[in-house]
Amino acid sequence: MQNVKGTYDFFGKKQALRQKVQSTLQEVFELYDFDRMDSTILNELDLLTSKYAGGDEILKEMYQLTDQGMRKLGLRYDLTIPFAKVIALNPGIEFPYKRYEIGKVFRDGPVKRGRLREFLQCDVDVVGISGPEAEAELMQLAVEVFNRLEIPIVVRWNNRRFLGEVLAAIGVPSDEKLSVMLTLDKIEKIGKDGVIKELVSKGLDAQVINAIANLIELDNPTFENVARKYGIQENPGALEVQCLQDIIQKLGLAQICKFDPFLSRGLSFYTGTVYEIFDASNAFTSSLGGGGRYDAIIGQLVGRDDMQYPTVGISFGMESIMEMLENRPVQTPGALVVVIPIGQTVTEVLNTAAMLRASGIRTSIDTSKRKLKKSLATASSKGIRYVILIGEDEKSVGKVRLKDMIETTEVELTIQEAIGIISEKAAH
Amino acid sequence: MQNVKGTYDFFGKKQALRQKVQSTLQEVFELYDFDRMDSTILNELDLLTSKYAGGDEILKEMYQLTDQGMRKLGLRYDLTIPFAKVIALNPGIEFPYKRYEIGKVFRDGPVKRGRLREFLQCDVDVVGISGPEAEAELMQLAVEVFNRLEIPIVVRWNNRRFLGEVLAAIGVPSDEKLSVMLTLDKIEKIGKDGVIKELVSKGLDAQVINAIANLIELDNPTFENVARKYGIQENPGALEVQCLQDIIQKLGLAQICKFDPFLSRGLSFYTGTVYEIFDASNAFTSSLGGGGRYDAIIGQLVGRDDMQYPTVGISFGMESIMEMLENRPVQTPGALVVVIPIGQTVTEVLNTAAMLRASGIRTSIDTSKRKLKKSLATASSKGIRYVILIGEDEKSVGKVRLKDMIETTEVELTIQEAIGIISEKAAH
Repeated sequence: MQNVKGTYDFFGKKQALRQKVQSTLQEVFELYDFDRMDSTILNELDLLTSKYAGGDEILKEMYQLTDQGMRKLGLRYDLTIPFAKVIALNPGIEFPYKRYEIGKVFRDGPVKRGRLREFLQCDVDVVGISGPEAEAELMQLAVEVFNRLEIPIVVRWNNRRFLGEVLAAIGVPSDEKLSVMLTLDKIEKIGKDGVIKELVSKGLDAQVINAIANLIELDNPTFENVARKYGIQENPGALEVQCLQDIIQKLGLAQICKFDPFLSRGLSFYTGTVYEIFDASNAFTSSLGGGGRYDAIIGQLVGRDDMQYPTVGISFGMESIMEMLENRPVQTPGALVVVIPIGQTVTEVLNTAAMLRASGIRTSIDTSKRKLKKSLATASSKGIRYVILIGEDEKSVGKVRLKDMIETTEVELTIQEAIGIISEKAAH
Repeated sequence: MQNVKGTYDFFGKKQALRQKVQSTLQEVFELYDFDRMDSTILNELDLLTSKYAGGDEILKEMYQLTDQGMRKLGLRYDLTIPFAKVIALNPGIEFPYKRYEIGKVFRDGPVKRGRLREFLQCDVDVVGISGPEAEAELMQLAVEVFNRLEIPIVVRWNNRRFLGEVLAAIGVPSDEKLSVMLTLDKIEKIGKDGVIKELVSKGLDAQVINAIANLIELDNPTFENVARKYGIQENPGALEVQCLQDIIQKLGLAQICKFDPFLSRGLSFYTGTVYEIFDASNAFTSSLGGGGRYDAIIGQLVGRDDMQYPTVGISFGMESIMEMLENRPVQTPGALVVVIPIGQTVTEVLNTAAMLRASGIRTSIDTSKRKLKKSLATASSKGIRYVILIGEDEKSVGKVRLKDMIETTEVELTIQEAIGIISEKAAH
């Protein structure tokens, strides 16, 4: 017996840390007024493979299955397409609509550190806002999330439309733009030489390759320098970049959110701004999250040209975040009290535990009938502060013995008195 | 485009109610000191179809798939088998171990009210306690859960071993016991005549059928009456029932937890106590949850005869609970404040919103550039109490205008002052 490759079970300390990260994300998402969604894992294959969906790379990794009615289905590989589906199927949803979803997605791809076959995605998306304030708000949100997780980050951002204008200006043919973008996107990973090599292997024109070499060798590739060099300052994509950059600066986020003219992200469906989140120290090189604007997918899925569905989103990579945090100490949530019967008092123990729990006190019971010394040692090793003992004597007078393992005291009192003491200490 | 049959997307009010139910369950599970687990959805087909797993009925409804390495996989159809797998694969886990899991499971079966193909299960299980205090604790937990959900329930319970002893006493051959149990289990649904008819159609001996008719016609089929009638009071199963019944009575749960000698539940893996939760008013006839003791599965999965893995669990049926609650009013979580720019103040609006959010105030922004009257009407219809307006004038003096939609006041103040007022009101 074994787990399916690339899938993991979580419990104990690891799960406690995952829960903590999820709660942090959920809390920030809700402060930013996103509505929680729970979309389906099973989807019609046609939806998942529609040409506006995930792109070839992802489709190769999709799990496919057939139900008993021979319908072709697939497991979702992201939360974006199911979100687009929900918007398409529910015309009653009022825009702008902001939703978040935290749920499992599946990819039958290569397994490596931080890359699993069954993993948690945490997505926020806004549909109905075309202006850059939506991007800015998502950047604020990302900064707040990682601030709370105490992970210093840098958000690298670019604009696909702008990058397209740059490539057009240097003479990249339209039908090769996407391919060149995907190569440029790897510059951090494979270096400038690697980019040129890959472009050569893709059979691009020597003149075009020269022009790209020129671009990536730029001394200080700020937005202004790039736009000026190619004389495209007034192009629509450049104006979008200018506008978002102004907001970022005014919000005081310029130190964290850095323009990167070579970033494009893998997916073909992005239409404007794209961004990716990295560990600021660069010690951890995988992306901690990313996203961008995809104004076309939903409209195309809905099949209506007369409606606009401007959409922008961000996805947080739970597995990467967990890789970064794995050595952080975490307080495993545990019982505050353990109730132990001495003799024939199991019923009283169950009753007492129920009263403690009804008062909001996390309580365990230990009916193992081991030697008391052993039970106390277990409680101590689990960091349980209070032990309540109920013997025949206590039972007969309707009392319990309360041991405080920190102050090493032991008193006989009523259960109500014990609850009072424990609640008071727990509140401090 | 459509959803896969029997699968649903949740958002807005419905999802808010689901979240509330989930939070209630989670809170009670943790007060009872259960550890959260997140097990895999994808599993080896061999695990899911092992003879100790779900049984033929469920296996027919299992979704199967193949990965790119041609490995045979299946989607989990319950949370019990994955839990047994985790215990089997992690010998380091200390017993007794109490875990809960809230997660999706999949069954390719008939779709009807409260029965979906992709649905949420909420399970708690304890491994390592063979005594009836584990059953009693789970019953207390179930009572507390439905108490908090304000759903009056009845927990019907029985013991498979005891039922086996009864059937042996009336002469049911060993190899027909399980089949008879499954028919008896339907007595509420198909009536006494229906039970007899089904037994006849199963080809049972006339004498046996007569004896069963006798059993189900018993006037007052309490545990004592049934055990006395067949002279099996001292059999092991009967003693287990006696012991749990004593605890239930002493805990004051006898009004809610009612012994039912015909209950057996469908699954073949139960070895002792079984129970099922129903709406006390009987207006809603589907089960709201159920479970029982399955002492054999884990040991058999682990493949060790020398180790004991006594286990008992309970599963809450989220979809049934939601069916019952669907008409309950629920407070959709929404923003407390909306911040609106008047003129070129989007950056100030984003900044102000971030400050409100950092103070723990759920905040939305409205950059739709509609007429103010329309924006205010939207805020009002969404039940948003506060509106913060930032115009060029306010911007120039570093202030905001705070409208209280309930008290219909409007004041100009600093953002810190506004946060103070809103926080104070929100706390009350």
